[in-house]
Amino acid sequence: MDLLKDLQWRYATKAYIDKKVSDEKLDFILEAINLTASSCGLQPYRVFAIENKEIRAKLGEGSFNKQITQASHLLVFAAYNNVTTEHIEKLIKLVAKNRGVAEADLKDLFTKLDSYFNSRSIESNRHWSDKQAYIALGTALIAAANVKVDATPMEGFDPAVFDELLGLKDKGLHTTVILSLGFRDETADFLAAAPKVRIPVQEMVTMI
Amino acid sequence: MDLLKDLQWRYATKAYIDKKVSDEKLDFILEAINLTASSCGLQPYRVFAIENKEIRAKLGEGSFNKQITQASHLLVFAAYNNVTTEHIEKLIKLVAKNRGVAEADLKDLFTKLDSYFNSRSIESNRHWSDKQAYIALGTALIAAANVKVDATPMEGFDPAVFDELLGLKDKGLHTTVILSLGFRDETADFLAAAPKVRIPVQEMVTMI
Repeated sequence: MDLLKDLQWRYATKAYIDKKVSDEKLDFILEAINLTASSCGLQPYRVFAIENKEIRAKLGEGSFNKQITQASHLLVFAAYNNVTTEHIEKLIKLVAKNRGVAEADLKDLFTKLDSYFNSRSIESNRHWSDKQAYIALGTALIAAANVKVDATPMEGFDPAVFDELLGLKDKGLHTTVILSLGFRDETADFLAAAPKVRIPVQEMVTMI
Repeated sequence: MDLLKDLQWRYATKAYIDKKVSDEKLDFILEAINLTASSCGLQPYRVFAIENKEIRAKLGEGSFNKQITQASHLLVFAAYNNVTTEHIEKLIKLVAKNRGVAEADLKDLFTKLDSYFNSRSIESNRHWSDKQAYIALGTALIAAANVKVDATPMEGFDPAVFDELLGLKDKGLHTTVILSLGFRDETADFLAAAPKVRIPVQEMVTMI
């Protein structure tokens, strides 16, 4: 993989052709998302990978983002509404299992994490979970470009519709950001050939 | 690049050896950050790449994160405090220049973006900028792993100290998240050999 070339290649696709992303490529992207760096290893979000056209039509109703239905798949990143003791307990069990250590030996870690997240407001924990989901979005965009799958990250959607249709409330989740996956329609998408617009790296970065 | 292998290889490094990240590798990581996907192309954050040991010592004073000073470099991701008309104007000028179109032809885009960001609270725009910076963090982590540079994303720091020492207030920025870069100390860091802890991908992803 040439990361810089892939980042140059990708763009927020506006129009897609009618072609399905293979299971192999989709699995690669989803695997990368699951391996995303995550603070404390908590992975405070879940992903819904939607191919079903009817559900996508309902999700995209009234939206200016035609990509929701036009693309091959839609990924919905849904973050925790809060970080609870239950989440920490689950993490500790998983750490114990994966690393072959006793849960009792992880008591300090449990207490540290549990007291930290409990000391913050639900809103702070929710914002934190949202930000963690955006790291996964960044990974997904790179993974997609790596296998030459086009993608469109979208924030302009009705979260209430998404939360309702996907039953997120009962799962303690809310829709954070969505990402369509598919293949660009170069004739219909004037942005496909447009040069990428970025400030010079010297303006982005101050060296100290 | 094998993205999945790189994601497996990386971890939040706890101890670093005394070895400098080369300019070539650092430039690669910074270039990748600048090419990060960014909503509307706004790139609402800046990065401070700090090698200076004295400044890092001041930034890390009292922090449990020894990586701030121990690593080779520290990247500070600082997001906009708000998204203003000035930011939108600057973006429009850049789009016009890079794509060879007249600014007048981008008036609709300007109005759309300007009215959108002005319709939201400063706090919402600030949260939005923070989330955008986390996409860049995700890119930086992958770029670092790609050139076998170890890294530690950190949220446990005193933002007031960072904002003050880096003069961020005057720049309309605030510290969002920090990332140390360097090379792991395998003998001092028990996590270097620990298996990665992730939920199964089937638990992360619901297929619909």
